[in-house]
Parts: sequence; C-alpha cells; structure tokens
Amino acid sequence: MKTRGPFDRFDCLSPIDYRYWDEEAAEYLSENGFTSYKLLVELALVKVLHRRGICPEDAVKEIEEACSQVTTAEVYEEEDRIWHDIRALVNCICRKVSKVYRRFVHWTATSFDTSDSANAARYKDVVEKVLVPALTDLEGVLIATTLREAETAQIGRTHGQHAVPITFGFALAEYISRLGGSIEELKELAAKLPGKFSGAVGAYNASSLFFGDPEGFEAEVLAELGLAPAEHSTQIVPPEALTRLFCEVTIVAGILANLSDDMRNLQRTEIGEVGEEFEVAQVGSSTMPQKRNPINFENGKSCWKIVAPRIVTVFMDQISEHQRDLTNSASARTYGEIVAYVVSMTKRLTRTMKKLTVDRANLRRNLEMTKGSIAAEPLYILLAALGHPDAHEKVRKLTLQASREGRPFEEIIFGDAEMKDYLQKMTPHQRQILSNPSLYVGIASKKATAVAQRWKQTFGL
Amino acid sequence: MKTRGPFDRFDCLSPIDYRYWDEEAAEYLSENGFTSYKLLVELALVKVLHRRGICPEDAVKEIEEACSQVTTAEVYEEEDRIWHDIRALVNCICRKVSKVYRRFVHWTATSFDTSDSANAARYKDVVEKVLVPALTDLEGVLIATTLREAETAQIGRTHGQHAVPITFGFALAEYISRLGGSIEELKELAAKLPGKFSGAVGAYNASSLFFGDPEGFEAEVLAELGLAPAEHSTQIVPPEALTRLFCEVTIVAGILANLSDDMRNLQRTEIGEVGEEFEVAQVGSSTMPQKRNPINFENGKSCWKIVAPRIVTVFMDQISEHQRDLTNSASARTYGEIVAYVVSMTKRLTRTMKKLTVDRANLRRNLEMTKGSIAAEPLYILLAALGHPDAHEKVRKLTLQASREGRPFEEIIFGDAEMKDYLQKMTPHQRQILSNPSLYVGIASKKATAVAQRWKQTFGL
Amino acid sequence: MKTRGPFDRFDCLSPIDYRYWDEEAAEYLSENGFTSYKLLVELALVKVLHRRGICPEDAVKEIEEACSQVTTAEVYEEEDRIWHDIRALVNCICRKVSKVYRRFVHWTATSFDTSDSANAARYKDVVEKVLVPALTDLEGVLIATTLREAETAQIGRTHGQHAVPITFGFALAEYISRLGGSIEELKELAAKLPGKFSGAVGAYNASSLFFGDPEGFEAEVLAELGLAPAEHSTQIVPPEALTRLFCEVTIVAGILANLSDDMRNLQRTEIGEVGEEFEVAQVGSSTMPQKRNPINFENGKSCWKIVAPRIVTVFMDQISEHQRDLTNSASARTYGEIVAYVVSMTKRLTRTMKKLTVDRANLRRNLEMTKGSIAAEPLYILLAALGHPDAHEKVRKLTLQASREGRPFEEIIFGDAEMKDYLQKMTPHQRQILSNPSLYVGIASKKATAVAQRWKQTFGL
Amino acid sequence: MKTRGPFDRFDCLSPIDYRYWDEEAAEYLSENGFTSYKLLVELALVKVLHRRGICPEDAVKEIEEACSQVTTAEVYEEEDRIWHDIRALVNCICRKVSKVYRRFVHWTATSFDTSDSANAARYKDVVEKVLVPALTDLEGVLIATTLREAETAQIGRTHGQHAVPITFGFALAEYISRLGGSIEELKELAAKLPGKFSGAVGAYNASSLFFGDPEGFEAEVLAELGLAPAEHSTQIVPPEALTRLFCEVTIVAGILANLSDDMRNLQRTEIGEVGEEFEVAQVGSSTMPQKRNPINFENGKSCWKIVAPRIVTVFMDQISEHQRDLTNSASARTYGEIVAYVVSMTKRLTRTMKKLTVDRANLRRNLEMTKGSIAAEPLYILLAALGHPDAHEKVRKLTLQASREGRPFEEIIFGDAEMKDYLQKMTPHQRQILSNPSLYVGIASKKATAVAQRWKQTFGL
Repeated sequence: MKTRGPFDRFDCLSPIDYRYWDEEAAEYLSENGFTSYKLLVELALVKVLHRRGICPEDAVKEIEEACSQVTTAEVYEEEDRIWHDIRALVNCICRKVSKVYRRFVHWTATSFDTSDSANAARYKDVVEKVLVPALTDLEGVLIATTLREAETAQIGRTHGQHAVPITFGFALAEYISRLGGSIEELKELAAKLPGKFSGAVGAYNASSLFFGDPEGFEAEVLAELGLAPAEHSTQIVPPEALTRLFCEVTIVAGILANLSDDMRNLQRTEIGEVGEEFEVAQVGSSTMPQKRNPINFENGKSCWKIVAPRIVTVFMDQISEHQRDLTNSASARTYGEIVAYVVSMTKRLTRTMKKLTVDRANLRRNLEMTKGSIAAEPLYILLAALGHPDAHEKVRKLTLQASREGRPFEEIIFGDAEMKDYLQKMTPHQRQILSNPSLYVGIASKKATAVAQRWKQTFGL
Repeated sequence: MKTRGPFDRFDCLSPIDYRYWDEEAAEYLSENGFTSYKLLVELALVKVLHRRGICPEDAVKEIEEACSQVTTAEVYEEEDRIWHDIRALVNCICRKVSKVYRRFVHWTATSFDTSDSANAARYKDVVEKVLVPALTDLEGVLIATTLREAETAQIGRTHGQHAVPITFGFALAEYISRLGGSIEELKELAAKLPGKFSGAVGAYNASSLFFGDPEGFEAEVLAELGLAPAEHSTQIVPPEALTRLFCEVTIVAGILANLSDDMRNLQRTEIGEVGEEFEVAQVGSSTMPQKRNPINFENGKSCWKIVAPRIVTVFMDQISEHQRDLTNSASARTYGEIVAYVVSMTKRLTRTMKKLTVDRANLRRNLEMTKGSIAAEPLYILLAALGHPDAHEKVRKLTLQASREGRPFEEIIFGDAEMKDYLQKMTPHQRQILSNPSLYVGIASKKATAVAQRWKQTFGL
Repeated sequence: MKTRGPFDRFDCLSPIDYRYWDEEAAEYLSENGFTSYKLLVELALVKVLHRRGICPEDAVKEIEEACSQVTTAEVYEEEDRIWHDIRALVNCICRKVSKVYRRFVHWTATSFDTSDSANAARYKDVVEKVLVPALTDLEGVLIATTLREAETAQIGRTHGQHAVPITFGFALAEYISRLGGSIEELKELAAKLPGKFSGAVGAYNASSLFFGDPEGFEAEVLAELGLAPAEHSTQIVPPEALTRLFCEVTIVAGILANLSDDMRNLQRTEIGEVGEEFEVAQVGSSTMPQKRNPINFENGKSCWKIVAPRIVTVFMDQISEHQRDLTNSASARTYGEIVAYVVSMTKRLTRTMKKLTVDRANLRRNLEMTKGSIAAEPLYILLAALGHPDAHEKVRKLTLQASREGRPFEEIIFGDAEMKDYLQKMTPHQRQILSNPSLYVGIASKKATAVAQRWKQTFGL
Repeated sequence: MKTRGPFDRFDCLSPIDYRYWDEEAAEYLSENGFTSYKLLVELALVKVLHRRGICPEDAVKEIEEACSQVTTAEVYEEEDRIWHDIRALVNCICRKVSKVYRRFVHWTATSFDTSDSANAARYKDVVEKVLVPALTDLEGVLIATTLREAETAQIGRTHGQHAVPITFGFALAEYISRLGGSIEELKELAAKLPGKFSGAVGAYNASSLFFGDPEGFEAEVLAELGLAPAEHSTQIVPPEALTRLFCEVTIVAGILANLSDDMRNLQRTEIGEVGEEFEVAQVGSSTMPQKRNPINFENGKSCWKIVAPRIVTVFMDQISEHQRDLTNSASARTYGEIVAYVVSMTKRLTRTMKKLTVDRANLRRNLEMTKGSIAAEPLYILLAALGHPDAHEKVRKLTLQASREGRPFEEIIFGDAEMKDYLQKMTPHQRQILSNPSLYVGIASKKATAVAQRWKQTFGL
C-alpha cells in the first residue's frame, strides 16, 4: 500500500478505471470521493461541537479550511507511516490546524463513525444524484418508444417460438414497468441508509463522558450529512440497509441485461426486427466488414455478469465478529464498482435505445412466417367455449396437419368438416381473428400506452 | 422424470429432504404443496367464471370436488405421457368432471397463469405463516435474554481484540434490531407478491375474446388467492418481487449466521462466556468424550453457506427471453429450499438460544484480563478534552509501557508525572473509570433495554 | 432432525428428489448411499486390524454381518437420542456384535476418518461409474452426428450475426473437444481424491499408541477402499482435491449449457435449423397447441443455473478453523446434488441429441439469406493480399452499398470499377468463393472429422 | 469509453488500482500490459509470414519498430473514432508502417486470434513469473517456521474447543502441503493455456486461402508466443483451460484465507499464541491506543471475499452463443483482477508470516487450561483396547465429573475405583500420557518436519 509515483490511466487493472470509468460516478465512488465524504463527516462533528458550546467558531473555521486542503495522496503518505487510514486522515487535518484546536478533530469518534457515515452519505448521494437520474433518462427513452410503437404488431415469442401476437410497444412496456418499480425502490432504500456516531463498540462509551444525551449528539452530527442514526450500531453500522440497496442495484442490472438480451436477439440476422444504429466510421469486425454487431447490448449483458455474482461478497460481509472484525475492509471497498458498472450500463443503454432502428417490414414478415398457425390458441379457446369436448387435442392435430401439408392454417381450419358448425357459431370478429391472427393482440396496445403514461406521470417526464 | 416406485426418505439426495425437512414448511414448499396451490388457482378461476355467469354453480362444485381428489403422483403419471406439467394437471381435473363442464377448467389460461400465481400465493403464505412466526419466536428469546442480561458487563471485542466494555445484553440487542428490521421487510415483501392471469404472452389475448375488462377479470381471479395482479406481465410475472423476497430471506440467513458465529466464538475453550446446553445423553465427539461442541451454532453458519450463493441462481432467472423462455424451469423449483433452510436454521437457533448458558465468572475474568489497559480509550479522550496536545500518542506509549512492564494500566497512569495535572482536572467519576474500566460501558444497558422493549411492543411479545 | 414417519416422494422440497432423481446416481449420492460407504470404511478398518493381528477373524465376520444389516433409519433414530451421527452409526453396529468384539469397531478412529474417507470413495465411484459413462454416451452421440454432418454447410454466427460459413459438424465438434477434455479431467481428479485415517486432529495421536507406523496403518485401511491418504490431514481431509473435482463438474455443466443454448437458438422459429423430436402425445403449450418448445435444451440451461453458483458454497467450505470447525457440516451434504444435476442434464441431453432433427432446407436458406455479403471477409483478405492499400475500408463500403441497394453482393463486387484489376489477379477458385461464399468453409469438414475420430478412438467408441 | 484527460490514481474506483495495485502484476494485468501482449501477437504473425516467404524482412522490421511505439492511449483514441478495439490497434500499427507493408499486419487474422492469444500468453506469464514465485516465497516462510516450531506443543482445536495436542509446526505444515499442491497445479494449468489463430469462426476460412496447412501456420505463430493451439476453436479459444486456471487461483485464495483466519484467531486476546509484529509508529485504533489488531490477516480474509464469488462470472462466460457472442467482452476484462488480488494477498501474507511472533508461554498456558481433560481421548482408546465394554460412555462421565468438581482430570482418573485394574494393565508410557497429556501429540513433529522437508526439496528452497 506504499504511495506510488506518476500513474497512467492504462496502468489500471480494472476496466471500471481504464474503460468504463464515468466522471459523474467517480465524484462519489472514487477514493478521492471517499476522502471528501470522510472530511465532511469530520467537519459535521466540529460544527455540532460548536453548536453545543464545546469548541469556538474559530475552531470550526480552521478545521473547515484544513479539510478543504487535505488530499488523498497526503493521507496515503501518512498511512504508509502509521498504518491506520482514519488516524492518518485525522493527522493530516490536525497538521493544518492550530495546536489548541486539534483536540476537537475526531472528538470521541471511532474510525468507523467516520467511514461508515461517509459511506452511507456517498452511496445515498450517488444513487440519488447519478444512478436514479440515469435510469430515469432510460425510462424516458423507453416511454417515448413505447408510445410510438404501441400499435406496431409483433409476434410474441415464448421458448424462442412464435406464440401469439403482441405489439412492440407492449414488449417494451414490460421494461418500463420493471425499471420504474426498481427506480422507486432505489429511492426508498437510498433514503434509508443509516449512519452512526456511537463510538468504538457502539455503546457511546466516549461520547457519554461528555454528553447526557449521546444519542441526541449522534443524531445532530448525522443530520448535518442528511442521515439518521441506526437504531443500534456496534463499531459499525449494521450492514443490512446497504445490502438491500446493493441487492436492488443488482436487480436493476438484471432488468437492463434482460432488455439487452431481448434487443440483441431481435437483431439476429434471421429476425432483424431492430438494430443498433451504426456510426459512420464504425467497424463491425476486424475481418468481416459487413458485420453489424449488437456490441452495446452485448456490453449490457456482460456488465451484468460482472455485477451479479458480486452480491455474494456483500452478503459475506454481513458477518462481522462481535462488535466487528475488519474482514470487510478490502471487500467493502469494491462495492462502489457495482454501482459504477450499472451507471455505465445504463448510460450506454440509453444512448443505444435512443437510436434503435425498428424494421417494420421484418416485423410483418416474421408475424406471417408461420402461415397462421399462431391462430391455434384462439381456435382452441373458442372451440372450448363453444363446448367442444376435446378442443386442445383437436387443434393440436390440426396444426400437425398444417405443418405436414405445408398449407396455411386458415385453409386447414375452414376446410375441416368438424369445424364447420363451430365456425358458424362464432362472431364475425372471432372468425376474422382465425383468418388474420395478427388481430389477435388482446389489449396489447392499450396496456402499452397505459403503462407508459403512468410512469411518464410518476417521473414527470 | 418417469414416475418411480416406493421411496424411502433416505433415498433422497438433498439434506433438506432427508435431514432438515420441516413439516410446517413442507406444507407449502414441497411438490405436494405446489400441486395444492395450483389446484387453488384453477378453482379460483371457475369461481369467478360462475360469478360472471359463464359457468353454472354445479360446474364449480364438480371442479372443487375434483381438485380435492387430484394427487401429485397422478399428475406426474399423466405428465410422463404428455410431457407438459400443467396440461397434465388440467387433464387430471377434467377426468373427474362431467364432459360438459370440462371446458371451464383452465379457461383462457396459460400454464404460467396457474404456476406463477400458485407460486406467489404459496411463497406469501409460507413467509407469513411459517418463516415470520419462527423468526418472531427467535426474536422473543433474544428479547428475554437481552432484558435479563442488559447489565451484565462484557468486554467489547473488535478484531478479536479486547476493545472497551459493553454489556452482554447490548451485544444481543444488535441482533434484536437487525432481525426485527428484517422481519418487517419480509412481511412487506410477501404482501406485495403479484400474480397474473393475462394469458400466453400477457396481452390478455384469450380472455379479451370473452371479457370487455380482461384486467378486471384477472384481478377477480387473483383476489380469490389474496393476490393483486402485476402491473405488466408476459407469459410470466415479472421476477423482481420474488427476487426481492429471496434477497431478504438471504439477508435473514446472514443475520442468523452472524449471531451463530458470535455465539460459537464466545464458546471457545479460552473464552467460555456462553455455552450450548448439552442433552443428558449427548455425545460431543466420537473419540473425545470431554468435548462440548457448538454444533447448533456451526449448523447455523453452515446453512448460511448453502443459502447465500443460491441468490445468484435467482438473479440469473431474472433474464427470460422475450415473452419468456423456460430456462428458469428447473432452477425456479429450487427457490423453496432457500426458505426451508432458513426456517430450519431459525427453529434450531431458537431452541439453542433458549437454553444458552451464560458464564458470569468467565465474563468477569475476561473483562479483567488486560489489567485495565482497556482504559486507554477513556484516558485518551479525557486528555484530549483537557487540551493535551498529543493525547493519542501519549496514551499509546503508556499502554506499551504497561505491556512491557506487565503492570496494571492504572498503576502506570497514576504513576506518570505528566498525568498528574490532568488527573486532578478530572471529575471523580472520570478518575474512577480509569481505575475500573468495567464502568466504562457508556449507555450499553439502557440501549439494550430500549431496543428490546421497542421490538417487544412491535411484535406484541 | 427427529425421525419422521411414512414419506411420499412428493413431500420432498428439492427437485433433485421429486423430479430429477436418478436411480444410478442415488446409489452413491443419497443418504442411504452415504451410510453404505461409511459402513465400508468401518469394515475396512477391522479387516486391517485383523491382518495386523489385533482382532480375530470372527470379529471381522461379525462386524461385516452387522454392517450389512444397519439401516440409515436406525442410525437416525440413534442420532436423535445421542446427537452425534458417527457415534450413532458405531452404536448401531456394536449392538449387532458380541460385546467382546465391539471395541474393534471404530478403533482409534475419529468421526471424520469415517466420513471424509466415505465421501472420497463415493464421489470417486459416482464420477467413475455414473457421470463419466453418461458423458461418454453423450460424447458418442455427438461424434456420430458430427461424422454424419461434417460436410453440411451452415452459416457461422458471431454476435448472432451471420459471419462466414462452417459446417454443422464443425459446430458440433467444438463440443466433442470441450467435453472430451473435461471427461479426461474428471477421471484424473476422481482418481486423486484422498482419504484419511489420522485421528482427531490428524497427528495419529490415537493410532500411534498402538502402531509404530501409523501412516502405514492409515494407508492400509484406505487401500481397502481404493484410496490413498492425504499428505497431511487434520480432523479432516484438506478440501482442495474435492473442490477441484466440483469445479470440473461445474465446468462440464457449463459446456452442456452452452450446447443446449446453441441448440435452442437454432430451433428458433425464424432459424429452424434443428429440432427436438416430439413424442406423439407431447403437448407443447397448455393453450397454444402448435408450439414445439425446446424444453429439453431449456432444462439443460436451467440446471446449469442451479449448479454454477453452488461452487461458491464449496469454496466457502475450504475455510475451516484450526484442526477443523463443523461449519461445513450441513453445506457439504449438498455437494452430491451438484453431481446429480449434472448426471440428470447429461442423460437428458443425450436422449435429446440422439433424436435431433436437422433441417437441411433451412440450413441452406439461412446460408443464402444475406445474398452473398458474407463474402466480405474473403474479399477483404484477398484484396489486402493483392496489395490494396485500404482493403477493409473498401469492402466495408461495398457491403453498405449492397445493403442500401438491396442487391446481391456478388453483383456489387463484379460491377465495381476498382475491383476489376484485383479480380483478374485472383485464382479461379478465389473468384468462385466470391460468387458462392458457401464454399468459403476453410477446413471445417476436415477438422470436424479429425476431432470426432480422435475422441472416438480415445474413448473406444 | 471516450479518452479522458489527466488522471490521478485516487480517481480510481477499484481498490486494486488505488490501494492494492502491484507493479509486478500490473506489467501483465493492466491495460498497458494487455496492449503489449496484443502487439506481441501481431508481431509473431509477421515473423511467421516472413519465414514462410510471404513478406520481406523489412516488413518485419518496420512492424516491430511500429509495435514498439504504439501506446494504449493512442489505440483508445482510434477506438473512440471507429468503435472497434483490435481494428484500432491495427490502424495504429499501420500508420507507422510503409503503405506497401500494411497489408501484412493482422493478415488473415480475426480480432480474437489476437486478443485470446494475447490473454493466454499474459496469464501464463503472470502466473509463472509473478504469482507462483510469490507463493513460493510464502511457502519458504512457512517451511522455515514449521521446521523451527516442529516440536512446539500446541493444543489442537476442533469446533473452537480444545481437542488433543499437536505441535505448532504441525499446524503450519497443513498449509505447506495445501499450498504446495496448489502451486504445482498452477504451473501445470498455466503451461496448458492454448491460443488460437484459426480466423473468424475457427475454420481457418481465411488462412486456408493461402496456406495448404493452416493448422501448421497457426501452430507456428503461437509457438512464437510459447503457446500451443486449442484442439478446436471458434472465433474464440474454448474457455475451459482459462476457467480451470482461475478455479485454482480461487482455491489458492481459499487456502490463504484459511491460514489468515487461523492466525487471527490465535491472536485473540484470550488466546494470544501468535501476533503480527507491529511497526514502531503503527496505530492500532483511532481511539483505542492499546489495540494490536490482526489487520494483515483480516485483509487476507477480506480479499478472499472479493475473489471467491467472482469465479461465477468466469463460469457464466463459458457460455457463448454459436461461434461466439460478445457477452464476455466487459466481464473477461475483469479476470486479471482475480489474479492481482491473490498476488497482493500473498505478498502481504509473506511479509506478515515472516515476522510472526510466537508466544510460547501462552501456548503452554492454553495447553494446560483444561486441567488434563484432553486426556479423555487416550483414556477412552486405551480402555477400549483393554476390553472395557463401554469405554466412551465411561470416559464421558469421568469428564463430566471433573468439570462438575473442578478437579484435574488426572486426579479423577487415578481416583476412580473401576479404573484401577485398567491402569495397571497399561504401559508406563501410556499412564504417563494420562498424567501429562501434552505428550499425547502422536507423530506431529515428525510429520511436520517431513512435510516441510519434502516441499523444501520440491521447490529447491
């Protein structure tokens, strides 16, 4: 952990640093970001000490000024000397403060009063100020596309097989709804992250030497950071609130990956219903110049594969012996990467979905590909409703016949002797669906629109 | 998947079936439990059909009677013939129903209208009726012990090292608070599990053939099961609500494992502060008759190791292509095991904590083990408050001296020339803490009691 | 863990017990299987005691007879009484043995001499006798299909996009090679699983009371089971050998899942190059009678999602404090499920691949779908070879032109002024490839055949 | 992925970059390291083209010179323009090469011929040149300490309870053996990593346009890099060889974490058998100056929690559709971090173990703590051997008596009427063990020495 010399971005080992690094996210999630939040906590403390008459205003001013000058590099140098990260930070502040005021720095605090509260504050902020806005942007793009494509008929697919029709807007509305729900969860969970200022083992041992209401004192310090205290803490904040937040971030990654997977499958050469728009100079393959690869959607899936298993690290860190052990020290430093990957995924997906091309000709072609055999479901349903004793089996056999003879399903139905009576009992609309199953979309477009409108309103888009 | 002959419990491969099987949990989580919930969904459907005037009351009665007779074994036999699980279930019901009423069974439904709604209902029920009550029992035991031990001084430990004192009740109150929070989350998440009755691709294609308000129809069917519909579904319910529930179940497992780890460490031969009570005939080791192993706490940790990584399977299942693929078919069948392991852990932990022995002599011995050097923190804090320019460093050196000379820390402090002035400026209580640091417990006992009382009230215990 | 009454298979919670249970695998992996292997270890011990002159032949006979009668149910009943599994087993044996011979049972052994050695022996056996043969069967099916389809042209796909041609046999040969390599690894790893007979903490404390060469004694006991001793053990065998085996089993699952994924994608309605053969009575969907779902390939993918994350449980169990803790007790009982799921996947995949239908018409149709633009790569390569200064960019523009104008790529190439000179410098075969890129298959068929033949020979198929 | 301006190390998000970065590892694992290996592959290609008479020596020279000048930053700038990483690299080389030679760059290659071969070569190298040497250093420290402490008696612990004695050297020898085995596996697996040069879909489509033996050509190119070709490849090398390597790296992490856990537990205040040596200026806690925390061992455990779950990402990447999809693009870039964390753990652990202090007084105190009741096992074994009909139960009761009466176990044994006869039949050595159970160490010291010597020799230490 020795301080090191000049550094090139490409000396980095993690792609989150040399390739998917995002300036907005790094403000909170980088080590510099962490330092600045730890300094905020130290400052919050002296402000409250002043308010409670323990230290003079000048001390606050000096310490505020000192905090504004402390650099991470300087703290790491001090840490190299004394082997303790927070004590190093405190020393760096103190050096810039008059001797007489130094004692107010970190007063009654333990390291993790500072670290855990700083983490709560910065994860809260990065979610509220970066991740949620990025996801809401994506939601906006999905809503606009859904409203535009609410009536565009598309074959519905289950098991990769043509099932019955929907609309493309309906397919996208799924993601509006799932993502919208997750955005709301993220907001709630971020707002609930607790801090702590209860000392070395959580029993306010030190602060109760000076305050009759150490819990009140804790609440005041944390209020400066926009946080509330944990109901009970030890040396550390109980990990569950943060764990829940990262679970939800992982859930978001899964939704984005699912959307990405759907889009890249719709982009298969044989399907061709959508496409990533290509840049003028973009190269698809180093040797196959004709290729138009879904690289952005593939990236979405790939980032999810990075993110999903890492939640197990977070779960492992739930276990800390007695009033804490430090076996989460290195591992907890990696949590920010989870958020950063999801920010990166989200922004890229927004850019890609915004320029998504929709190929109406291919949508129509695919819908007609099975020559009407997708009418099997409405036929079965209608036969059953009309009292056919074995409707499912009858229709299964008719589809086999259509497939064997390579004829349109409509022909088979209307040519089947047993069907005649049933067809007569149907309404014209019902018969029309059997002839033209692309009408068999249920309430797909209405639902698509309703879902889009609801979330548009919710997010004020 | 062929039906198999007679079966001995010990022919099972999974310990959840041959060893940790719990009758209460199995009512919901076994394959028999799943069948019974699927039948409930099919019955809910015909009840609504009747209410809407589509089928006569006799149909409902016949189908209800039929459902009460269908066995899982029978369904599996039919599935062996036709290779489709829900169609097999429907066939088994239909066989027991008059020909004329058969068509009402599964009317307009797709398989996953049945399966996913059945899953939502049974996971809701098992959480509300088995897991939450079991956890609340444990909470009750923790509360009782905390209230009893609120004032029992114990050395607080960080990094496995003696830090500053707390009380044993305070240590337990941590778990009351963490577990209490999780119980409340579980209740909320279980209550929010949605069902669906929107047909093959979620667009109400079939049901809209018959109903002007297919969403109203869906809501009515699900209301019979105590469920609300998903805002948007495809062939399947969007997976996030269930994923969140299993995340919380995994979180609970982590809390239980942490408690178990703390208890088994306190039971180390050298520490000996608590003990699992032994049964009269219990054997500790097959060769070392003197052993008193913390096997129940070890079991808690071990079950957590089973459970935690499995959340990744749940996250993987979030991704389902287009209106669904079936690549979650086998994997989703394993989710119940997660809940079952946590039920098993919880019940065992309750039994063990209820009989936990607390060794006050060892608690006292450990507290005094470091000859007062745990007074280092209050000394540092007080010196700093009194304006010592380098309090932390001064105290660090005094502790090194105490350790080098093997003398009580109190002696070192009161014998140090530089300390004299500072000691005089302290209050008698402050000096007393330096002499007897077991008084330095902050508000540990008050906090322990408050936390215990709050949750006692919340859960009406 | 109380003994329970009569039990219906569908009271099980784990699908490995009620749905994917395999009789062959259960012989080793069920709790009954484990009991029988533990009894084999106890028997091996007395055989060696007899050989070393410590106990008479009659003792061996009596104990052998006793072991043949002990049931798992009986052991569990005894465990319910005394709370120790191996001591319960020992008691059950002893009850069936003359008092005078009882002391030879479990002589100098610790529980995990029995358990860990039994596990090594049964995992070795199940891999060698069930998993490897099942995988070799699948390998045989893949080899036969590869040889049959070695020359069947297929479009190669990267990123879901048409790239350049291969043959279907070549595509399958990938899996022969990957699977073949894994089968060989499995054999090696299974053969290397060590046992132990070194007593309570691994230092031969007990056995060295009686034997001058306790390590020789250990080797003799284990040789009876076909095992060698670990170089160093504590109460338990070091976990790495077993961990490596489960890593390889997980790797196998990944290969099977990849094959399954490829096949189900080739079965998409729009692609249709292969198909799962349907049973005469098979139902594809409960409401869409025309569906032909790739349910077996979906199952393959799904079982992989069960298996892959569980390796983390195995890794977690690597950590055992000091000479062991028991926090792997419950978790290690679940390892057999990993193997059992992979056996189940393998057998199902073999059945499905054996009846795989290959649709040559669709293969040809797909190959011609892009109207020759897959010739972009050979054109670029040839232009570059002939000294074109910017071949990749030139070809990229030609493909854009073809796509814009909707004309065959061949026409574009042969109509382009700049191309004329280059085309003249090409060999006739090279020009032919540009006109008919389905010839551009490299050495696909030769490679497919060579790979298939190599592994056919290796496995004597 | 836009190129970014000046960059401070503490703008990094990943602790592997700002905190645990290791210069030696970064040479291979950083993005700069990757670039240099990709350039090596491109150079290997032209060398072989020259050897086969396709390009002149001057081309090789120019390209070699060009490769020596290409920077990662430059490649990223070009990638920002054309959106393809390898084509960008190729363009950067070509710009520095005479027009006439440009066509030889990347001749017949596809991107992943370059990327996958570069990865194979650099992972091979980093394992052979950094990880294995670092692990061997640690092995050396363990061996030296084991030889020094081979006879230092220590209480063996199972379940955190005192079991029977071993020696401290014996406890460490466990890790020599486990680690030694892993080092040998790592060497084997690194040496087996295959490369590929088989073109866009693996069928040598392009290279077979020019070479009659495209497989021979591939082998030559790879030989330049010290690699052999995969038996079968598609666009990518089959992932299994690399997956096995990362499994073993994860296994190593588990061994290191287990060692760390043991050491930090032995450092508990109540146990105190070992200690991390403190630096003169080192601070243990920001508020508790007396603390001596096992921060290095805690770091070892924590890094393992980072590493272990990430293997699931590697397993997920095993699945790549058809001849490949790109959903491993981002995720595969994170693999190097796994290796880097383990390098960092290893080096830190070596430094810490080298200065480990062993507290012989505490070792002795702990051994005597249970007043001889650890003699329960030898007593039981000896009684059984002497024909006592119920030895285990008898001894269990004697230990309960000792514990109840708080008397030394020796007194209880020698005072028990029933024991008299048995004691007389024992050898003096056997009786001596019952009086002084610290003699009951089996062959612990002999074994410790033998294991240490074997591996010392193997690694030439």
